Amino acid sequence: VPAQPKVNRGPAAGPANRQALIDAAREVFAETGFLAPLSSVAKRAGVGQGSLYRHFPDRISLGIAVFDENITSLEQLAALSTATLSDLFGAIAAQAVASTGLIELTASNRHDPRAAHLETRVTAVAAAILERDRRNDFVRNEVTTDDVMLSFAMLAFALSHSDPADRAAVAERAQAIFRAAFAR
Amino acid sequence: VPAQPKVNRGPAAGPANRQALIDAAREVFAETGFLAPLSSVAKRAGVGQGSLYRHFPDRISLGIAVFDENITSLEQLAALSTATLSDLFGAIAAQAVASTGLIELTASNRHDPRAAHLETRVTAVAAAILERDRRNDFVRNEVTTDDVMLSFAMLAFALSHSDPADRAAVAERAQAIFRAAFAR
Repeated sequence: VPAQPKVNRGPAAGPANRQALIDAAREVFAETGFLAPLSSVAKRAGVGQGSLYRHFPDRISLGIAVFDENITSLEQLAALSTATLSDLFGAIAAQAVASTGLIELTASNRHDPRAAHLETRVTAVAAAILERDRRNDFVRNEVTTDDVMLSFAMLAFALSHSDPADRAAVAERAQAIFRAAFAR
Repeated sequence: VPAQPKVNRGPAAGPANRQALIDAAREVFAETGFLAPLSSVAKRAGVGQGSLYRHFPDRISLGIAVFDENITSLEQLAALSTATLSDLFGAIAAQAVASTGLIELTASNRHDPRAAHLETRVTAVAAAILERDRRNDFVRNEVTTDDVMLSFAMLAFALSHSDPADRAAVAERAQAIFRAAFAR
């Protein structure tokens, strides 16, 4: 996603500013980590700090907004009739490699009520794709949604503990392990 | 391991004090986490703080000593001709459930030269057991030592991010996933 141009969107620009802030946060968190200064997010989005804090009162609410968009794209993937569990692992691995800072956010705030819906939404995606893979005989019968969710978490933690240069290779290896674990 | 009795072992008691400190640290870290006050370790071991700091100049050196003992028991397991990769997963899961604080230690100090030998030793254990399982046709041919080591790391991270009450169940589920991934 390219940086937004710095334009004064005016007082009616609330939704556009909000989206510009989310896009900028996604980039800045990926480049600098989740603890990047929020002023650099406002600057990249081309909005004032006041606008940033009106939309996102703290770092966590901004991180959750980025995460929400990631999950929306997983839901869109799950809506494709051809998407498999293996595709879902691939999409989650790609998101986790790009947004490793977000993993720390959710891991350390998993009891925050604002983050509770994230896991619920991912669980629904996993359950839907698992059910379809089961009907297609792509997965072993014993595999449960909890198994898939634990595997996602393990993949994410492995990436957040890896050096950035190793993350793509770690994601590949982890995906191969989970494919072997779940495949019929 | 029961707490050591508080006896004055005298100036010749260096090795006994060292072992008492390791035993106490194992218990205290398991109960209170890796950031427990070191004074409580000295107290439980029945040695003075001066003796603690002579043997272990900092928290990391004490944690590494506990970890070294854990790995020695894995090496003893690997020396049994009947031990399988599945047994090794079970032993590592049990250690990780009991010593979750040590996982954070090694994860956040993996570039510390004093911790480098830990990974080397575990890798040697994993390679030896994997080689034997391969000869016995217990594992798929494609499985590598790197796969096994990544799985150990993922298991450990999943436990260190779980609530203590959930750890035994998470360890069970993770082990079942990795057994399915590696079994022929």
